[in-house]
Amino acid sequence: MQNLLNDIDNVLLMGPGPSCVPPEVYQALSKPTLGHLDPYFISIMDGIKEKLRVLLNTRNELTIPLSGTGSAGMEACFVNLVEPGDKVLVLVNGVFATRMVDVAQRLGAEVDALEFQWGTPVIPQQVAEQLKNNSYAIVAVVHAETSTGVRNPVEEIGALLKGSDTLFLVDTVTSLGGIDVRADDWGIDALYSGSQKCLSCPPGLAPATFSNRAFDKIKNRATKVPNWYLDISLIAGYWEGSKRAYHHTAPINMLYGLYQALVLIEQEGKDAAFARHAQMHAKLVQGLEELGVEMLVDKPYRLPMLNSIHIPSAVSDEAASRARLRSEFKIEIGAGLGPLAGKIWRLGLMGYTAREENIRRLLNALKVILE
Amino acid sequence: MQNLLNDIDNVLLMGPGPSCVPPEVYQALSKPTLGHLDPYFISIMDGIKEKLRVLLNTRNELTIPLSGTGSAGMEACFVNLVEPGDKVLVLVNGVFATRMVDVAQRLGAEVDALEFQWGTPVIPQQVAEQLKNNSYAIVAVVHAETSTGVRNPVEEIGALLKGSDTLFLVDTVTSLGGIDVRADDWGIDALYSGSQKCLSCPPGLAPATFSNRAFDKIKNRATKVPNWYLDISLIAGYWEGSKRAYHHTAPINMLYGLYQALVLIEQEGKDAAFARHAQMHAKLVQGLEELGVEMLVDKPYRLPMLNSIHIPSAVSDEAASRARLRSEFKIEIGAGLGPLAGKIWRLGLMGYTAREENIRRLLNALKVILE
Repeated sequence: MQNLLNDIDNVLLMGPGPSCVPPEVYQALSKPTLGHLDPYFISIMDGIKEKLRVLLNTRNELTIPLSGTGSAGMEACFVNLVEPGDKVLVLVNGVFATRMVDVAQRLGAEVDALEFQWGTPVIPQQVAEQLKNNSYAIVAVVHAETSTGVRNPVEEIGALLKGSDTLFLVDTVTSLGGIDVRADDWGIDALYSGSQKCLSCPPGLAPATFSNRAFDKIKNRATKVPNWYLDISLIAGYWEGSKRAYHHTAPINMLYGLYQALVLIEQEGKDAAFARHAQMHAKLVQGLEELGVEMLVDKPYRLPMLNSIHIPSAVSDEAASRARLRSEFKIEIGAGLGPLAGKIWRLGLMGYTAREENIRRLLNALKVILE
Repeated sequence: MQNLLNDIDNVLLMGPGPSCVPPEVYQALSKPTLGHLDPYFISIMDGIKEKLRVLLNTRNELTIPLSGTGSAGMEACFVNLVEPGDKVLVLVNGVFATRMVDVAQRLGAEVDALEFQWGTPVIPQQVAEQLKNNSYAIVAVVHAETSTGVRNPVEEIGALLKGSDTLFLVDTVTSLGGIDVRADDWGIDALYSGSQKCLSCPPGLAPATFSNRAFDKIKNRATKVPNWYLDISLIAGYWEGSKRAYHHTAPINMLYGLYQALVLIEQEGKDAAFARHAQMHAKLVQGLEELGVEMLVDKPYRLPMLNSIHIPSAVSDEAASRARLRSEFKIEIGAGLGPLAGKIWRLGLMGYTAREENIRRLLNALKVILE
């Protein structure tokens, strides 16, 4: 019988995620499965919570990985915090904020979408204007917009909300582990991320944190959360306290992988990891410029881990060129999404991918492709 | 720095799941991560769908693993099929059917719970009576009730619904891979399972299937599914057709594990796997009877993979005895849940756990514990 797993290529993952996975994380995934209420497993859960708090710069007790991919993190934040009729402001400059609008509307929120041009950042002054004339239960923004490569000014937006009753909800799927995320300092009330970007663990988990006032809102809802699987109050009963109550069976081996990914960041030092992302980004941009390739995003707003480039004019069939990178050079890069489909490529430098040898390999391959 | 992963015990998992994982599945988990739109990864996805169809005895096109644990499967079936005000009948004789009631109510369903004593099966005649006097959009039942060890007569309940417009929703979390599941023959419209029971893959995925008429109901909903992450129409766009649309990043390495788990069942032969579960169950029951231990469930309704026993009178502190099994013998067994907490233990014989050497090891340990 044919087993497709025997012939999986070792692909250099330089797209928008998943990123390359270090050998230690692969090893962690295949450690012996424990029961989800096993006392030793619970100590690993506690270790994950502690390490996430350090990386997120938060003292939030409720700092846990959710049992789904980054999109489940988005779903969890909205479904727990939105009550029907709540006014929600989403700051939109890419695919993932657009998705937030859809998610919130499905849950009965009255959503205002404040739109900014894709490839440019959210402008805090415009947000301030919007907040002057409206009152919102939640303001939501994407820190690192994976569809464009733009870094949004989360700190400045958070400052606009200080002292208000508005909850601040932030997507850090692509930023966490690659640039600094300061949940408490920036006034973030709910935040989710994904395991498969700068944490360099395979996809399947969504680290998340909730401030006390976010958790208070959840506990004081008029109606039950319309999602049993992602009900944060129930999940908290499994992840916290001295007596753990079974909710759902946690994805044990994926959690081993996340634990190890967090150990590796701890060993490198998070500031060193951020510096590495910045340095590798600079090297990549320099190499791209030498090839005559142009960046989509203006310099001050560029993400180090997600580099969007205009598809060079030498490329006649962009899908064919990406397919050639994959088949001939065993490199994956990302296509454009939405209005940027066919116009940009997205080059990832996330976590374990962000190393000089990978940049050299990509630049050499691009050189051939552009010949 | 301490790394807790270095000291994970190899525990014999004889509780209600997760079950023991075969070495081939651990190896699969640590194969190189591919992109979620990589053409080779798509061929692995297609392989999983084909193998699941064989195991589920279904021709349903929409037969896929969902990106969450078994409970996410429950959530997905209800959130896609329930529209507010729908009448839903849940046949309740354990924790997981009780959970179904909660899940459906949160989604705005009008739920009738037809209750049967825990430890006994659903009685089809009573279901028939209920159906005479009421009309339901959905009837839901748990095939293998993990909280009690009872096998419910899914085939007979399905027969009662033939020719009606009622959709038949079945939980096969614990049954799939251990006893026969015949989705099409039994008239099942929506079904979910979990990776961590008789499939012997770690937790994290929920295999599911939807009949054409279930999918038609989903496509013709008056309102969007109030759960973007588990919206089956969007997920189908990623798992089906010649052009795969990105929805969320699939849990790549977990899917490798599931693929390998399905390969192993294929290699053994599913009927041989079911026979092995039955034989090991018989051996375990015989050994337990020799120890004077009594089964909770009457013989005709017992599940082979989940054996509930009355806690023997020689056990004064049941939690301490389970802790001793874990620490001294490195064996995990399950506690009772809900009204059966403190009254029963649950002994799992799921998938790779269902082997003679494991039964011997458990019986020998129990003998010491009961001395």
